[in-house]
Amino acid sequence: MSQAPQANNVLYAQAGGVTAVINASAAAVIETVQQYPQIFGKSYAAINGIKGVLEEELIDLSDIDNTVLEQLKYQPGAAFHACRFDLDPLEHNPAQYERVLAVFKQYQIGYFFYNGGNGSMVTAQKVSDYCRAHGHEVICIGVAKTIDNDLALSHCSPGFGSAAKYLATSFIEATLDIRSMHETSTKFFVMEAMGRNVGWLTMAAGLVKKVIPDAPLLLLPAERPFRREAFLQRVSELVEQQGYCVCMVSEGLQDEHGNYVNITAVEHTIEQDYTQLGGVGEVIAKIAADHLDCKTHCAIPDYLQRSASHCVSETDWLMAYGAGKAAVLAAINGEHGTLPVVIKTSDEPFAWDYQSVDLQEVANLELRVPDQFISADGMDITDAGLDYLLPLIQGERQPPFVNGLPAITPIHSQRVDPVLPTFIAVK
Amino acid sequence: MSQAPQANNVLYAQAGGVTAVINASAAAVIETVQQYPQIFGKSYAAINGIKGVLEEELIDLSDIDNTVLEQLKYQPGAAFHACRFDLDPLEHNPAQYERVLAVFKQYQIGYFFYNGGNGSMVTAQKVSDYCRAHGHEVICIGVAKTIDNDLALSHCSPGFGSAAKYLATSFIEATLDIRSMHETSTKFFVMEAMGRNVGWLTMAAGLVKKVIPDAPLLLLPAERPFRREAFLQRVSELVEQQGYCVCMVSEGLQDEHGNYVNITAVEHTIEQDYTQLGGVGEVIAKIAADHLDCKTHCAIPDYLQRSASHCVSETDWLMAYGAGKAAVLAAINGEHGTLPVVIKTSDEPFAWDYQSVDLQEVANLELRVPDQFISADGMDITDAGLDYLLPLIQGERQPPFVNGLPAITPIHSQRVDPVLPTFIAVK
Repeated sequence: MSQAPQANNVLYAQAGGVTAVINASAAAVIETVQQYPQIFGKSYAAINGIKGVLEEELIDLSDIDNTVLEQLKYQPGAAFHACRFDLDPLEHNPAQYERVLAVFKQYQIGYFFYNGGNGSMVTAQKVSDYCRAHGHEVICIGVAKTIDNDLALSHCSPGFGSAAKYLATSFIEATLDIRSMHETSTKFFVMEAMGRNVGWLTMAAGLVKKVIPDAPLLLLPAERPFRREAFLQRVSELVEQQGYCVCMVSEGLQDEHGNYVNITAVEHTIEQDYTQLGGVGEVIAKIAADHLDCKTHCAIPDYLQRSASHCVSETDWLMAYGAGKAAVLAAINGEHGTLPVVIKTSDEPFAWDYQSVDLQEVANLELRVPDQFISADGMDITDAGLDYLLPLIQGERQPPFVNGLPAITPIHSQRVDPVLPTFIAVK
Repeated sequence: MSQAPQANNVLYAQAGGVTAVINASAAAVIETVQQYPQIFGKSYAAINGIKGVLEEELIDLSDIDNTVLEQLKYQPGAAFHACRFDLDPLEHNPAQYERVLAVFKQYQIGYFFYNGGNGSMVTAQKVSDYCRAHGHEVICIGVAKTIDNDLALSHCSPGFGSAAKYLATSFIEATLDIRSMHETSTKFFVMEAMGRNVGWLTMAAGLVKKVIPDAPLLLLPAERPFRREAFLQRVSELVEQQGYCVCMVSEGLQDEHGNYVNITAVEHTIEQDYTQLGGVGEVIAKIAADHLDCKTHCAIPDYLQRSASHCVSETDWLMAYGAGKAAVLAAINGEHGTLPVVIKTSDEPFAWDYQSVDLQEVANLELRVPDQFISADGMDITDAGLDYLLPLIQGERQPPFVNGLPAITPIHSQRVDPVLPTFIAVK
């Protein structure tokens, strides 16, 4: 607990890969702050996360009316733009920290809500610490979001449930397609899930069993090394039993030597320290085609799985909204440097609450799919795994469709005229 | 016009690539036949199209109750399974034709409804002609379905509107994603559409303009050769103007020499006379990445675009249902060898009717995207193109969601016990 800051304006920003419900968290922060006018002053959003803070690219959120707020709640992408950009360490680039301090002082920011990945939330905290050490009191609170579901100490991550629902729905539909055509066409179908080195999104395909109980399913989560012979044996078994096989594979699948099983990982190393994944689905389809000597197909939903606002889980949406609200309440409590994580409070009915954990503590951990959710052979989901997933995809929350298309026209907000000297964050 | 057949039982079958609404046509045939008990006798469905006829794999449709019929109307895939298998020419394989005659006689089939592609519908007609020439009167009517929208003489094809709606929705959502992250992440995103050598599904991405009017859009329909320099120049322009570019490409894109622009067309020639397409999206992403020296991404929805029952166009659904109904009415009129195609009867409000055309006539034609729908530079859609597309995607018709997932559990129907000698259609 720390004292309430003297400056009482609010800054909200988004960073890292988006989710279909990240803007529910944004709306929650804005609406909850509005409920405490005795505590909070003006609210701002930074454009492009911490980059927008450095470059003084801000939006005055008092301009946002209720109609826009309602639109925001259905909007995919990051309404205030999200950056894949982080501050350098303080000792390498003190100018960045001085600049943030100058911006925070200029706009009297006392509360900083950072809706990002683990790493970027810790950076937000560090720069806030720097401000505090230099006489400007700031409370920094993280707001969790990731489709990967790798946030540790949390029951699950806001954003995951919607991606899981989208992937499960798509996989079920595709399974019915292949089921109806396999006798004279495709016998092996594979879909590639995001998630980098964790297989949560891959496991979501296991939900096909709830609709097609006998689906000939094969999962290749990133938590298990790809063993080619075992894979091909299982494919053969399923095709022999049911005529076809449907597979979900993690983009981050590795072989037994720890090498990525994909075609593009080597070629496309563009961002520093960030290997672009993707392509494993086609490798797996090719391996199966050569083995079965038949037609195979591969679907790569790519960004569709993290932006499918038309297939959002109501539960996940509520969780993302709740995460934003919990962050504001944590700020009121003066819990600087924390992140509200999801704590399951009841199984039947499924219920959850939020608990503040130390940002630095959670940043160094990774939630992988536990052993008890993966079958012994490493290629299927257990009942425990299905029991975990099912509550997270409950309920539907589509945007209104107008003229046949989702009414998700981007929100345009007037930027605050900058007053500080120009600062170029990215050359 | 021909006489009403003596045999009056009905056979319905499905063939070729599925659509999200093919089973609406199936339901329409079943329900419309039920409305004319004085004309029609028993109804059967063949499993796997003409293959199931040869192999005497039939379902007695009198077993299907109203609950199952309602389920059928939301079901993706082909409820009675669809084959990529066609009869040989009569002179090469008369045994196949004799076999169909034997099955038609055994089950007293007087009406044969074939829900397939152009080629397979003509085969259905030819085998029916053979039966008629051998003393067994059969009326054969086609029921159109294709997501590719290449059916000539028809305003559009049942199945296209839903695939277009799904692709447009997904493309719009992904555009908002890239729009919100391009400053420090992906600047070029491409999605790959099916459609073989026609670009209708690619043009559907143009609907993004109705939601994001200034979307930096680039279309590569199969109707235009890929000109690398012009493409890269347009990419550069759009990235310079708006910071990013979103692209949709036809799987059948060819270069100026008529070669497919993809990586797998050469490798995967598995089915006879059928080059498997797919992969052009990744080639385009790579070309753009090399040119821009930045991160690019590619989504390949693959089968998802033809099985997305959760994103069906109500208009398309009604059109598919109407096509099945029109086929039964054409049969009652004795219009053997015809196909009901869609005729637009009004623009405001959009309305359509069906008109019978000769199956053989339509089979030799292909509806490509006309010049007036493609911009002069070949990489954008015109207002005329948008005006054409928009009515086809109107309305939403989701299956009920139960327990968080679409209630599309496959329908299990009891097969008729075969009575004829075994016949192996596919070795």
